Amino acid sequence: MNHRDLEEKIEGIRKLSPSLYGKDFLLTWEKSDEDLRTILEVASVLRKMRAANISPRIFDSGLAISNFRDNSTRTRFSFASAANLLGLAVQDLDEEKSQIAHGETVRETANMISFLSDFIGIRDDIFLGEGNKYMREVGEALDEGFEKGVLPMRPGIINLQCDMDHPTQSMADMMHLISVFGSVENLRGKKLVMSWAYSPSYGKPLSVPQGIIALMSRFGMKIELAYPEGYSLIPEIVEIAGKNAQASGGSFSVSHSMEDSMRDADIVYPKSWAPYHIMQERTELLRKADRGGLKDLEQKCLANNAKFRDWEFDEEKLKLTRNGSALYMHCLPADISGVSCERGEVSAAAFERYRIETYREAGFKPYVIAAMMLANRFENPGEVLAGLMKRSRRRSGTE
Amino acid sequence: MNHRDLEEKIEGIRKLSPSLYGKDFLLTWEKSDEDLRTILEVASVLRKMRAANISPRIFDSGLAISNFRDNSTRTRFSFASAANLLGLAVQDLDEEKSQIAHGETVRETANMISFLSDFIGIRDDIFLGEGNKYMREVGEALDEGFEKGVLPMRPGIINLQCDMDHPTQSMADMMHLISVFGSVENLRGKKLVMSWAYSPSYGKPLSVPQGIIALMSRFGMKIELAYPEGYSLIPEIVEIAGKNAQASGGSFSVSHSMEDSMRDADIVYPKSWAPYHIMQERTELLRKADRGGLKDLEQKCLANNAKFRDWEFDEEKLKLTRNGSALYMHCLPADISGVSCERGEVSAAAFERYRIETYREAGFKPYVIAAMMLANRFENPGEVLAGLMKRSRRRSGTE
Amino acid sequence: MNHRDLEEKIEGIRKLSPSLYGKDFLLTWEKSDEDLRTILEVASVLRKMRAANISPRIFDSGLAISNFRDNSTRTRFSFASAANLLGLAVQDLDEEKSQIAHGETVRETANMISFLSDFIGIRDDIFLGEGNKYMREVGEALDEGFEKGVLPMRPGIINLQCDMDHPTQSMADMMHLISVFGSVENLRGKKLVMSWAYSPSYGKPLSVPQGIIALMSRFGMKIELAYPEGYSLIPEIVEIAGKNAQASGGSFSVSHSMEDSMRDADIVYPKSWAPYHIMQERTELLRKADRGGLKDLEQKCLANNAKFRDWEFDEEKLKLTRNGSALYMHCLPADISGVSCERGEVSAAAFERYRIETYREAGFKPYVIAAMMLANRFENPGEVLAGLMKRSRRRSGTE
Repeated sequence: MNHRDLEEKIEGIRKLSPSLYGKDFLLTWEKSDEDLRTILEVASVLRKMRAANISPRIFDSGLAISNFRDNSTRTRFSFASAANLLGLAVQDLDEEKSQIAHGETVRETANMISFLSDFIGIRDDIFLGEGNKYMREVGEALDEGFEKGVLPMRPGIINLQCDMDHPTQSMADMMHLISVFGSVENLRGKKLVMSWAYSPSYGKPLSVPQGIIALMSRFGMKIELAYPEGYSLIPEIVEIAGKNAQASGGSFSVSHSMEDSMRDADIVYPKSWAPYHIMQERTELLRKADRGGLKDLEQKCLANNAKFRDWEFDEEKLKLTRNGSALYMHCLPADISGVSCERGEVSAAAFERYRIETYREAGFKPYVIAAMMLANRFENPGEVLAGLMKRSRRRSGTE
Repeated sequence: MNHRDLEEKIEGIRKLSPSLYGKDFLLTWEKSDEDLRTILEVASVLRKMRAANISPRIFDSGLAISNFRDNSTRTRFSFASAANLLGLAVQDLDEEKSQIAHGETVRETANMISFLSDFIGIRDDIFLGEGNKYMREVGEALDEGFEKGVLPMRPGIINLQCDMDHPTQSMADMMHLISVFGSVENLRGKKLVMSWAYSPSYGKPLSVPQGIIALMSRFGMKIELAYPEGYSLIPEIVEIAGKNAQASGGSFSVSHSMEDSMRDADIVYPKSWAPYHIMQERTELLRKADRGGLKDLEQKCLANNAKFRDWEFDEEKLKLTRNGSALYMHCLPADISGVSCERGEVSAAAFERYRIETYREAGFKPYVIAAMMLANRFENPGEVLAGLMKRSRRRSGTE
Repeated sequence: MNHRDLEEKIEGIRKLSPSLYGKDFLLTWEKSDEDLRTILEVASVLRKMRAANISPRIFDSGLAISNFRDNSTRTRFSFASAANLLGLAVQDLDEEKSQIAHGETVRETANMISFLSDFIGIRDDIFLGEGNKYMREVGEALDEGFEKGVLPMRPGIINLQCDMDHPTQSMADMMHLISVFGSVENLRGKKLVMSWAYSPSYGKPLSVPQGIIALMSRFGMKIELAYPEGYSLIPEIVEIAGKNAQASGGSFSVSHSMEDSMRDADIVYPKSWAPYHIMQERTELLRKADRGGLKDLEQKCLANNAKFRDWEFDEEKLKLTRNGSALYMHCLPADISGVSCERGEVSAAAFERYRIETYREAGFKPYVIAAMMLANRFENPGEVLAGLMKRSRRRSGTE
C-alpha cells in the first residue's frame, strides 16, 4: 500500500518542537502554537492510520484512569477509544465504587490509582472555581509521588472538561474546521460566532464557550461572542480571547443580539450556558448545602432564561449568515426544539441540516485525546509515528 | 503439535459461502442455513483453538460496546469473553453512566459510541414490540453514519436478547445438541419439546422459547411446543417454526399438556414465560406509566400462573421421555423448586441430574458470539482461521 | 541494556520449588516458606521489569474477574493493574449488574463467569465466618466445573480480603519491609507491633491485623499484638502467629497497653478493628436481619471504642520506639485525627512523617497480585520470567 500522504504528514511533525512531553493538558491557553499544531497533526495522522488499518498501538499494557464527576457519554467513549487505540485499558474511578466518597484525601487517592497508570482523564465541570483546581491538586500529588519514588512514572492528566476549559472538545472542533475549510490558513479572516442560545435547563457549564473563544481566537478569525446581558463568561478568559485575537491578526467582539451577530458569519456555535455570576452563587450555595437557596436560584435562573426564548438558532437566523450557509457547530447533545424539548437552542429544521456535520465534528475527539496521550509520553511524536509506519502492524486481521 | 482435526474443520469452513459479512445478527430466521452452519463451525474451531492454547486474536485494538437494558450475568460475561478472545475491549453503555436517560436520541448516541467500535451488543427484552425495533433503529443510524463518513466502518450489531429472539442462546443450545448427539445429522427425527413451566415470577420474556422453536425446527427434528391455554407465543414466530419444520423434513405441533408432550421426547426444554397477550397489555400499561394497572396485571398473571403449578418438570415427567433419559436443557438460571423458590420450573432432583449439562450448554455462548463477530468482519472466515493457525501465537505463555 | 541484576534474581527463582501451580491463594498460613519466597521474588522481578520498560505480558487474551462485595479503591486498582500487566482484561461482577442478587446459586455463577477466565479475585470481608468460606465454595464449584469438562481450565482464586486474612496486603507489606530493611534476613530480631488504634467508626474487619501477625511471625521477628481488653482477634489465628514465631526463632506476645508495646519497636502498625465477639454478634444479627439489634450493637460498640480514644499513635508514642523512629505502617486509608475525622488512629503530625512511606507500601500490592497470578498459572515461574527477558518486548514504545 502507498502511504505517501501519511509519510509526508509525519515528516512535517518531526520538524515541530512541542513542549508537551511529560506535561498535563489542562488549558489550551497554557500551550504554545507549536504544541497545538502538534496535537492537531498527530491526531490527523492517527486517524488516517486507523482508516488504513495500521495499528497505532504503542503500549503493550498500561491503564488509563477515567475519573468522571459528571455524566457523559461521548467524552467517556472518546477517552476509552483513545486509550484502547494506543493499547491502554480503561479503569473507571467511580465515586460509588471507591472510597473517595468516604473522606479519603485527593492526594492519597491520586497515588493509589497511579502505580501502573499512564493517564488520568478527569471531568469535573460542575462547580465554578473547583474543577481545574482539583486537576492541579491531583497533578501536584502525582508530582510528589513520582519525585519520592512512589510512582515509577508520572501519569499524565488530561482535562476532559472543567469549569474553565474543555480542551478535547475545542481541539476536536478545530480539527473539524480544518477538515471543512481545508486548512488552518483558510480560517484566517473567517467570522466565527460563539452565541448563547436558549435552553429550558439550568446550570450548563461555561467551559465550552470559554474553550471555543480562547482557542479559535488564535488563528486569525473574527470571533464574536454573543449573549443576552447578564450571561457573561469568566472575565479572565474573555480577556485571553481578546489578546489572542489581537496577536493572531483576527478580532474579538461581544454582541448582545443573536440576530446581529449572525450577519455574515462563516461559522456559528449557538449553545446555552449559565451566567457566570449565577454559577458563582450556585457554588456558594452548594458549599453551604443550602437546598432552599439552590431551588430559589434555579427558579430565578430559569425565569431569566425564559426572557430569551428567541435566542434560538433557526432557519431565519441561518439566512443572515454568509450566503445563508454558515457552518453550524455544537458539542452535542443539543436542545432541539420539538425534539428533545419544547423549545431550545436550535430549531429542528436548522439542526437537521447540520446533524451529520455535528456527528463528524464529534468524531475527531478520540484522536485528539490519543494525540495528547502520545505527545505526553514521547518526546518526539513524529519519530514514534514513523516507527509505527515502519512496524506496519494491522489493526484488524491476522497480519 | 498436531492440529489435523482443526485444520480439516477449517478446510470445511473455507468451502462455505455465508452472507454474514457486514450484516447484523438479529434473528436466526433472517439467516440462511449456510450462515448458521458457518457460525456453528467457526465457533467450534475457536473453542478448539483456545483449548489448544492458540490465540484467535484478530484485533490489535478496538471496542465492543455492551448495551444491556436488563440485568444479566451470563450473557454479559459471554459477550465480554468473546470480545476479549478476539482482542476487543468491552465498553459498557449503562443508562446510569450515560446521557441516554436525558432525552438524547437513539441515532445520535449510536454514532457517538461507534467512532472506534467494531461491535455493539444489545440486550433489550423487556417490552414486546420494542427490543428488536430498537436494534434496527440503531442499525439504521449506523448505516447513515457510515455512508456519510461519520464512522470509519459500520460496527456490527449482535442481538443479545430481544423481545422476539435470543439467537446467541439458541445457537449455543444448538452447539450443545451437536456435542451431545454427535452431529447435526443425528438430530434428524429427534423429538424436542419446548415446554412452558410454572414460575412464581411474572413477565419472563418470550424470546427463549421463540428462539428455540424457530431455530431447532430447521434441522429435521420433531418440535413440540407445549403450554397451558392462554400462554401462546408471538403468532408470526410460531408460524415460522411450522414452515421451517416442513421445509426441513421435521414436524411442528402444539400441545396443552406437559405430560403428554413429554412422551418419547429426546430433548426437553421446560421454561417459564409470560403469555403473549399479557406482555402486550404490559407494554401498553408501561407506555402509559399506569402503575395501578401494572400492579393489577401482575396479580392477575401470577394468579393465573398458579393454576398451572403442576407444570413442573420432575422425575415423574422425565420417566415419560425416551428411555426415561431425555436431555434436559435450560438457559439458566432455572427456578428450581426448593432451591431458588418454593415451587418452580423444575424439581431439585430432576435439575440436579442435568445441572452440569446445563453449565456445559451455557459454555458454548462465548464462542457463538465470537463466531458472529468474526463472520461479520471478515468475508472469508475460513481464510482468517487458517491465518490464525499459521500464525500460531500462544494464548498464554511467552511464546 | 544491562539487566544483570534482574537476571540474577531470575536465576534464584529458578532454584525455588513452590507448590503454587494451580492453587488458589487464600491464606498465607496455608503456604510454604518457599511459596512465599517465590511470590516475593517474582513480584520484585515484575516490578523491576516494568521499571525497565520490559513487558511482562504473558496472556494474549483472557479475563480476570473482580468480585468485590465491599467498596475498595486501592485493592480494586491493584487487581486491575496486575491483570493488565500480564495481559488480562478485568471484568467486574457487581451485584447490581448481575443476577446473583436474585437467588442464583454460588456454584452456578462461579461457572458462568469462568468459561474464558484465568482468575477470580474476591473481596468479601464483612461477615465473620463467611468470606473465606464463600471463596472455598467458589473454588469447589470451579473444581467440579473443570473436572466435568464445563471449564477448559480451572481459574485461580485470589483472596483480595476476607474475614480471616488479607494476603495481598500482608505480602505487599512484607515487600515494603524488605525494601526498607534491605533483606528478609535483616528483619530477624526486629520488634513489630501490630496495635489496635482508636477509630470513630465501627465494624472494621479483623483481616489486616490477623494477616499481619500470621505472616510477619514467620521471619524471626518479635511480634507484639496490642489491644485494649475485649478487642481480641480470632483465637485460632492468634495461635498460628504464636506457633510461627516459635518455629522461626522469633517471639509473639500480647499487650494491653499501646504505650508499653511501643517501647523499642522497630516497626509499628497502629490500626483499628472491631472486637471479635462483636463481629460474631453482628453476623448473627445480620443473618436475622435484626435492624434494631444492629443499631444497638453499633451504639454499644462505639461507646466502648470511645473509652480508648487515647489509643492514638502520635509523636509522643513515636518517641518511645527504637531511636524514636520506628517505621510506621498502615494499609490505608487511615483515620487521621483532624484530617479524616476529629480523632482517630493516628495524629496528623505522626502520619505526615510517614505519609509517603505508606504510599510506597501500597505500591507493592499490584506486583504481589501479578506474582500470585503468574505462579498459579505456570509451574516454573523462573523459566517464564527468563522467557520474558529473552523476548524483551517493550511495555511502551514502538519496539
